[in-house]
Amino acid sequence: MITSDSGCDRFSPLFTDLYGLTMMATYDHHHQNHMATFSLFIRGLDSLNRGYFVSAGLDDCLAHLEKLRFSPRDIAYLKQLGRFSPSFIEKLAAFRFTGDVWAMPEGTICFADEPIAEISAPLPQAQLIETAMINIMGFQTMIATKAARCIYAAAGKPLVDFSLRRTQGFDAGMKVARCAFLAGFAGTSNVLAGQQYGIPVSGTMAHSLILAFGGDEEAFIAYARTFPDDCIFLIDTFDIIAGAHAAVQAAKWLSENGHRLKGVRIDSGDMVEESRMVRNILDSAGLQSVQIVVSSGFDEYLIADVIHSGAAIDAFGVGTRFGVSSDAPYLDMVYKLTRYNNRNVRKTSPGKITLAGEKQIFRHVDASGKFNMDTLGARDEAISETRPLLEPVMKKGRRLKPSVPLSAIREGFQVEFSHLGDEYKALYEPKRYPVEMSPELLKLQN
Amino acid sequence: MITSDSGCDRFSPLFTDLYGLTMMATYDHHHQNHMATFSLFIRGLDSLNRGYFVSAGLDDCLAHLEKLRFSPRDIAYLKQLGRFSPSFIEKLAAFRFTGDVWAMPEGTICFADEPIAEISAPLPQAQLIETAMINIMGFQTMIATKAARCIYAAAGKPLVDFSLRRTQGFDAGMKVARCAFLAGFAGTSNVLAGQQYGIPVSGTMAHSLILAFGGDEEAFIAYARTFPDDCIFLIDTFDIIAGAHAAVQAAKWLSENGHRLKGVRIDSGDMVEESRMVRNILDSAGLQSVQIVVSSGFDEYLIADVIHSGAAIDAFGVGTRFGVSSDAPYLDMVYKLTRYNNRNVRKTSPGKITLAGEKQIFRHVDASGKFNMDTLGARDEAISETRPLLEPVMKKGRRLKPSVPLSAIREGFQVEFSHLGDEYKALYEPKRYPVEMSPELLKLQN
Repeated sequence: MITSDSGCDRFSPLFTDLYGLTMMATYDHHHQNHMATFSLFIRGLDSLNRGYFVSAGLDDCLAHLEKLRFSPRDIAYLKQLGRFSPSFIEKLAAFRFTGDVWAMPEGTICFADEPIAEISAPLPQAQLIETAMINIMGFQTMIATKAARCIYAAAGKPLVDFSLRRTQGFDAGMKVARCAFLAGFAGTSNVLAGQQYGIPVSGTMAHSLILAFGGDEEAFIAYARTFPDDCIFLIDTFDIIAGAHAAVQAAKWLSENGHRLKGVRIDSGDMVEESRMVRNILDSAGLQSVQIVVSSGFDEYLIADVIHSGAAIDAFGVGTRFGVSSDAPYLDMVYKLTRYNNRNVRKTSPGKITLAGEKQIFRHVDASGKFNMDTLGARDEAISETRPLLEPVMKKGRRLKPSVPLSAIREGFQVEFSHLGDEYKALYEPKRYPVEMSPELLKLQN
Repeated sequence: MITSDSGCDRFSPLFTDLYGLTMMATYDHHHQNHMATFSLFIRGLDSLNRGYFVSAGLDDCLAHLEKLRFSPRDIAYLKQLGRFSPSFIEKLAAFRFTGDVWAMPEGTICFADEPIAEISAPLPQAQLIETAMINIMGFQTMIATKAARCIYAAAGKPLVDFSLRRTQGFDAGMKVARCAFLAGFAGTSNVLAGQQYGIPVSGTMAHSLILAFGGDEEAFIAYARTFPDDCIFLIDTFDIIAGAHAAVQAAKWLSENGHRLKGVRIDSGDMVEESRMVRNILDSAGLQSVQIVVSSGFDEYLIADVIHSGAAIDAFGVGTRFGVSSDAPYLDMVYKLTRYNNRNVRKTSPGKITLAGEKQIFRHVDASGKFNMDTLGARDEAISETRPLLEPVMKKGRRLKPSVPLSAIREGFQVEFSHLGDEYKALYEPKRYPVEMSPELLKLQN
C-alpha cells in the first residue's frame, strides 16, 4: 500500500464510505459470505447531451483491487473508532480481494444502462470496493467521453489538454491528461502526466513573461534565444495587433538565425475575428506556415462554434471547461448488487430500478464495422453475429493480462469511434442509440 | 518528495504546465532572477450566484512549497525531453523555494478580485509554482464556498458529506471532506478523510444489504444485532411505506433488547411527501425521537427547497452535486505577476485586466463585528479602523507558524460567517459586497 500525507492514498481500503465497512462487518457477523455480483453502469436518466460514453479507468481499478491491504495504521484507526468488534477487525489484516472481474476494455464506446464492469466476489469483499470502483471508473469515463466530444468537434484540428490548473485536485489533473490522450488529444501541458504516462507535453509562455521582459518583442526575442526551434508567442498581453506585429519581427530574427517560428497564441477576446486579423498579418509577412493556437474557455461547444464561424485557428488549448466536464460535471455511475448466493436480485426504488442477473452486452455490427444496436443479455447467452463487449480481466484477484499500453488504447479507440454514426455523436441532443434487452435477460427480472 | 505510481504526486515540481519550466529556463538564460510578486485571486466575471468565497487550501500550498524538490527521476525525464540546456537542468537538483508568502488564513470570507495570497520570490521560482498554487487553492476555495452555501441553506440542520464516490478523483474526495468539515458539516462518509483529518465518520447501509438479506426487516434486524447502538435503516429499497413499518418492527426489537433506533434514511422519490408520511408512521409508533435522514441529489438549492416545503427531515447526506460544485464546477482563480524588479506591472488583455502592485485587503467592520465593506489597498498602506486580511505566513521558504488544526479553522469560520450579512449569503443573485480600491492602489495602476 502506498501511503502519503497528501490525502491521495490510492490503494487504501479506507478509501470507502463508512457503510462499506459497517456492511462488511454485518455480513461477516451473519456469515453472509456467499458469492455476489455487482454491476457498474451509468444510469441513463439525465446524461446531458451525451449520446455515448467512452469507458476508462479499468487499469486503475484492477491495480486498486490487486493492492488492497489494511495497513497496521488502518487497523489502529478502525479500532479507535470503537464501532467494530475486535474479532472483525482482527480478520482485516489478512484481507485480500479474491474476486473475478468482467469488463469492457478501456476506450470502448458504451451506453447508459450497460455494465462497464461486473465484479463477482464473496459479498463482504465486493461491498468494500464500491466507492473506489465508482470514483475511479466514473470520473475517467466522464472525462474520456468529454475528450471524445472535443475531438469530434475539432474535426481533425489538434487539441492539447491545458486543464491542469483548474482540475478538481491533483489526481484529477493526472487522469484528465490520460483520458484526453486516450481519446485522441495530441498532448498535454501537464509535465507530470508526460512523465508518468508518456504523453507528449507542450507549452511555451504566459503573460508574465512579456511583463517581466517589459514588452512583446523583447520577450519574444529573449524566448527565441533560449528555445529557437520551439517558439509559440503569446500575442495578447497588451494589444493583439501590436503583438502580432512583434511576432512578425521576432520571426524575422529567427529566420535570420536559421530557425522558423512555429506559432502564435491568442488567449482572450473574440477568437474568430482576432484569428482572422492575425492570419492576415502573418500571411502578409510571408508567414503562411506559422500556426495560430488559441486557448481560453474552450470546450466542444465553443470549438464547434468558432470553426463553424470560419476562425483561422490551427490548434486548440483546451482547459478548464473540458477538465471538469463543466456542462455535466458528474456521471450517475452506480454499483448495484444483481446476484447473490445464486439468486438474481434487484431493487425497485422509484427512479432507481436495477436489473438483476449477470450480464453481457452483444453489439450488432454491420459488414463495414458500423455499430447498429446493442442487446443487453444474460452473461451465458450466445447471440449470433454480435460482438460481446465484456471479457474476463481478473480471476481470483489476479489480472489475467498485463496493462494495455495507453498508446494501444488510444489506437483502439480511434477505430471504435470511426464505427459510431454521426447521429450519436451530435453535440446537442444526439440520437438515442438502440439498446434492447434480450428475452433471456427479461425473464431473469421476474 | 513523495512519489507514487498513483498519479498523485503532490510535491513534484513536475506538477506544472510545461510553460512553467520553459519560462523558468528563459529567465535563467537571461539572468532575470529579480524578485517578483504574483497575486492569487478569483476573477469576478462569472461567479454564478456566489456572493462570497471561503478561502481554503493554504496549508497544502505551504506544504507544497516547503517540500518542492526535483528528484533524480524528474531530472532524468526533463533531460530526455531534449528541450532544456544541460546547464539549466543541472541547476534544478539544487532547487528550493526561498520566497515569501502573504495570505489570508484558511476559512476567511473573501470576494472576487481580492488576493487570497501573494507570493514574492525570485522570478523563476515564483513562475514554477503557478499551476500548483491555482490547482490547490482554487479547488479547495470552491468547495469550502459550496459547503458554506449548503450550511446556510440547511439553517441549522446537520449535514454529512456523502460525495466520495462522485468526486473528481481521489485527491478531490479527500479535499471535499476536509472543506466540508471546515465550513461546518457534522462529518463525512469518507473513512480515509476521517483517519487523515480527524473528521467524524458516519454511514450505515446501502440497498445491497437489504437485497442480500432478502427483505427490509430481515436486514434491519441483522444490522441491529451487529450495531445495536448505531442503526439508521435505509427504508426505500422496495416500498417506502413497507420499509418504514419494517423499521418500526426493528425498533421494537431494539427496544426490547435495551437499545434505541437512531434513524431511518430515504434515498429516492419525493422527499417532502415521503418524509412526512414516514414521520407519521414513526410518531404513531411512539418513535418521535427517531431521526429522518435523507440523501440523493442534495445541494444548497434542493436543501432550501425541501425545508421551505415543510419536509420532516432531521439531517441531510449531501453528495454528488456538492462534491463537484455542480452549478459552478470551477473557479476562475488566477495567478498574476503584479510587481517585478521593483516595478509594478499589469496586463491589459480584453476582459482579463490585472491590478499592479503588492496589496492588502482592509476590512471595515462595525461595532458588532458585521462586515461593511473592504478596501483593496497597497500593502504598505495603513487604513484606520479596518482589519487587514493578508498576513505573512512564509518567509524565505519557511513557514512562520505551524499548521492550524482543522477544528480551529472550523471554529474561526463559524465566527466569520456570522459576521457576513444575509443579503450576501442569498443562494440566488446575492447582493454584491462592496470592494473599493484605495486612492493609493489606484495611483499604482498608472
